[in-house]
Amino acid sequence: MAKSIMGKVRSNTQGEGRATLGTYLFDCLKKEGVTEVFGVPGDYNFTLFDTLESREGIKAVPTRNELNGGYAADAYARIKGLAALITTFGVGELSAVNALAGAYSENVPVIHIVGSPKSEKQKQHKLMHHTLMDGDYDAFRRVYEPISAYTAVLTPANAMAEIPKAIFIAKETKKPVYLSVALDLVDQPIATKAAKVEPFKTSESSLKSASKHARKLLKSAKQVVLLSDAKVKSWKWEPLVRELSERMQIPAASTIMGKAGFDESHPNYVGMYGGKLASEKVRELVEQADCLIAAGHVPSDINLGGETAQLNPKKMIVVQPESVTIGGQIYTDIRGEDMLRELSGMGLTAEQPIPAAEHPYNSGTQLDGSNPLVSKEYYPLIQRLLQPGDIVIAETGSFAYGLSQTQLPQGATYIGQAGWQSIGYATPAALGASMAAPKRRVLLFTGDGSLQLTVQEISSMMEYGCKPIIFVLNNGGYTIEKVLNFRVPVERQSYNEIPGWNYTKLVEAFGGDAYTQRVATIGELARAFREADIQRQNKLCLIEMIASDEMDAPESLRLLGEEMEKQEQGK
Amino acid sequence: MAKSIMGKVRSNTQGEGRATLGTYLFDCLKKEGVTEVFGVPGDYNFTLFDTLESREGIKAVPTRNELNGGYAADAYARIKGLAALITTFGVGELSAVNALAGAYSENVPVIHIVGSPKSEKQKQHKLMHHTLMDGDYDAFRRVYEPISAYTAVLTPANAMAEIPKAIFIAKETKKPVYLSVALDLVDQPIATKAAKVEPFKTSESSLKSASKHARKLLKSAKQVVLLSDAKVKSWKWEPLVRELSERMQIPAASTIMGKAGFDESHPNYVGMYGGKLASEKVRELVEQADCLIAAGHVPSDINLGGETAQLNPKKMIVVQPESVTIGGQIYTDIRGEDMLRELSGMGLTAEQPIPAAEHPYNSGTQLDGSNPLVSKEYYPLIQRLLQPGDIVIAETGSFAYGLSQTQLPQGATYIGQAGWQSIGYATPAALGASMAAPKRRVLLFTGDGSLQLTVQEISSMMEYGCKPIIFVLNNGGYTIEKVLNFRVPVERQSYNEIPGWNYTKLVEAFGGDAYTQRVATIGELARAFREADIQRQNKLCLIEMIASDEMDAPESLRLLGEEMEKQEQGK
Repeated sequence: MAKSIMGKVRSNTQGEGRATLGTYLFDCLKKEGVTEVFGVPGDYNFTLFDTLESREGIKAVPTRNELNGGYAADAYARIKGLAALITTFGVGELSAVNALAGAYSENVPVIHIVGSPKSEKQKQHKLMHHTLMDGDYDAFRRVYEPISAYTAVLTPANAMAEIPKAIFIAKETKKPVYLSVALDLVDQPIATKAAKVEPFKTSESSLKSASKHARKLLKSAKQVVLLSDAKVKSWKWEPLVRELSERMQIPAASTIMGKAGFDESHPNYVGMYGGKLASEKVRELVEQADCLIAAGHVPSDINLGGETAQLNPKKMIVVQPESVTIGGQIYTDIRGEDMLRELSGMGLTAEQPIPAAEHPYNSGTQLDGSNPLVSKEYYPLIQRLLQPGDIVIAETGSFAYGLSQTQLPQGATYIGQAGWQSIGYATPAALGASMAAPKRRVLLFTGDGSLQLTVQEISSMMEYGCKPIIFVLNNGGYTIEKVLNFRVPVERQSYNEIPGWNYTKLVEAFGGDAYTQRVATIGELARAFREADIQRQNKLCLIEMIASDEMDAPESLRLLGEEMEKQEQGK
Repeated sequence: MAKSIMGKVRSNTQGEGRATLGTYLFDCLKKEGVTEVFGVPGDYNFTLFDTLESREGIKAVPTRNELNGGYAADAYARIKGLAALITTFGVGELSAVNALAGAYSENVPVIHIVGSPKSEKQKQHKLMHHTLMDGDYDAFRRVYEPISAYTAVLTPANAMAEIPKAIFIAKETKKPVYLSVALDLVDQPIATKAAKVEPFKTSESSLKSASKHARKLLKSAKQVVLLSDAKVKSWKWEPLVRELSERMQIPAASTIMGKAGFDESHPNYVGMYGGKLASEKVRELVEQADCLIAAGHVPSDINLGGETAQLNPKKMIVVQPESVTIGGQIYTDIRGEDMLRELSGMGLTAEQPIPAAEHPYNSGTQLDGSNPLVSKEYYPLIQRLLQPGDIVIAETGSFAYGLSQTQLPQGATYIGQAGWQSIGYATPAALGASMAAPKRRVLLFTGDGSLQLTVQEISSMMEYGCKPIIFVLNNGGYTIEKVLNFRVPVERQSYNEIPGWNYTKLVEAFGGDAYTQRVATIGELARAFREADIQRQNKLCLIEMIASDEMDAPESLRLLGEEMEKQEQGK
């Protein structure tokens, strides 16, 4: 059921006779660095949770619901490279579909483990609770097929083959995989036939041809530019793109989906590329380059600046995880990391100097503290208050567009779903990030609209001692939707309004001790941010930002709305 | 793509030239009595919401997230016979999968309408946001296939055929259907070729054979009993089973999934049947009947008392929507309602008198108001305070088991998911029920564990002026799970603990004016319930019930736990 071109999967024998399916599963995950497993208990996954409870060095992190658990796992995997989620048959697993589909779309490896009814009941096609009442025990695996890189039903006989294979596929494809196991099989001893899995190897001849072609293109180019895109982050190519830029002495830009894959404090970094929606100078540099090396490129609508990008394939070297495309010609069977190393090692250096970086929020001017909260003032402020090593989580909505244009400090991690764009993702993602990196500062930027979808995970964060600083932009509804639905006047979009909440009372209601502050000016925001940085030593912090105008939106979002309207009218 | 044996679908021509796809869709829904459409806006469904906003007599009811919208639609359909839900492509629709699968399992017709990217983008396989980034625009429809009775992609050319067909299939099969429509096609005028759909007709010869067989079985039976089960409610057979019981003068029992399908105040009603988990006298009556007429029967594990039921197929007449099975022999192509009428009209009457009803909470004794809240005392109290016409919503968990044993007053509606059992369902269901029957009293009984999954819909209820009385049983976690996971001691089930919330503050945080009360004794509960009944004229009410013992569980749930343990050890 594997979807992608995979390496060989071989079997051999190991001496782990005493392992049960459950202990083996969690030991495999632990070996991969997964020390927290998200999920929600249910009567078909009790044996999974009980096994987890008894293992050392790996523990359960129950979330308030399964969708939130999936989102938390996604963010955890973005930081640690792999994550796991446990749900129960039917009612549990099907609540998490959006989260797993998001991981598929955004190339995030998550192992989804579903506890199913006893094997005997399944064999007899009994009408158990949590089923469709038709005796079909394969229906939910089929639901997951279109959004999983691999699906398997575990048994004691196949566990030592299927578990390593599934983990391997998840890591290799950076996609979620789906494993289900019957309640009664978790504690059973497993057959000792383990699978040995081997990543596919780059074809030497293919790499040689690609290298030759690339060298030709590069040698004739006066201006070479690196575009660091989404898959650089999923495949952890950050050191490779950095080395490439340094060795070739070429400028590097990022896309919104690839943000912070290239260190934004590096002298070679020139800023964000987003077609006509971001810096004009970066656009010219990228689009007019004689050769553009696009690493981990994802040509999605938003990533290409609302389809305003003008990239010429004839001038591009597109490095992907399993292939390279040069001037429109594809070379398959090449691991992207091998190609990046090949390019770095060519001994070619740029003819042009690195241009000055473009950071729209780098205005040196002093902000007036008494000013109300408008995008063009609070983003520069937020940028100034960021620190090296921060984990910045940007919710889909105004913040995703506004924060994409900040310059992040060294070692910062930027988490968002610029491709999948599921509102509600960011709050549980803050839980996942806090669990993955308990010592780092986690900054969650969300909006009042998005927060409402998954708000209960604030409760989990307080319960587990996570101390992010949460910024809630209160602009009275789905502002991004109002901006993008140019077809009808805002007053006829009542469906884009939401109930107004009291966030201070909310965190109190969740039973936690938190620092909360409501701010309406630049000065108040600055003070609250600084105060929160002290308070977060002991507690979760929540800063409610009252937008001065509910239609205020960051420049790139405003431009996107205009662009969409233009495109529609141009038809 | 229809799954079930359907009637013929024919096409003819109608004169609605001016209709657009969107106006036609909503007019069709309105004609079916759907005057509220649940959902969450997103940029691919704007045109659907805009159309809805412009129509008279049908309106949007935005929910805090899509899963909740699906649950609300489910409850709405249980009352009004049909419901609709609008979501956006990918991120929206995939959040609602559990709700729609639940509707499938529990036989509830919901029309799920998904707004998708512009048709041109789809044709070109563009990598738009909310996609899997692989150009596949059919993936999410495939996700829905295993849990839908029908799926279709709407176009102006097929709308007048597909929309009536989909609604017909939903109503006929009592299952959800899935329709998607591209953003730009909603406002397009549609072709005027409408489909005429005809329900399948009972085969006269098949009915005659079944009737003959049934008469033979009935005539030789001394004790005939009616078991009113789940599908009686989905197919609205309530008047038919009542008539059958009255004409034949036979006692009627209900199952947990069929609860209140037979009027529990009717003199022929004898109580709930649940194998060994409910009344022993009802068990004897049902299991020892010489002929058991099981209407709308669903032989699921929980419905059969945790598989403790002993029903003899040789003595059963099982009436289903599309077939009848008598003494194990199946007669197909019979509409269940025709068979019920046939049985009623046979002129046969029972030889035995109707036995006294069994209602475990009908103890006549005075309750001591100072007693703490334990199941065996508060269920009788709740039963006494129910009123004719109440809508009682029972969350999966302790309440589902406890409330199943109450005697409901005349005209009461009982909503719960005794088959699918998805915790979190009940809170959004209260929104759906309040919208479907704004004049009736809605009583939501939920637990602290379940509430956390979907709590934000309390905010929607306050926003839209719904005034249910919400009972939150605070027993410090997933008590039902603790009871059912007999394998390990409770203190080793840390995953079944949850954060403690302050419910009074919670409703305040949601910005609404509500009546809230925390009660710990029988007397306090009685007073709070009566006070809430006054307050609910103006506001939503929430009563937090502090359980005296976190392991206190209603008798039937306790017995289920014991039964499961016995079954496991017996193996």
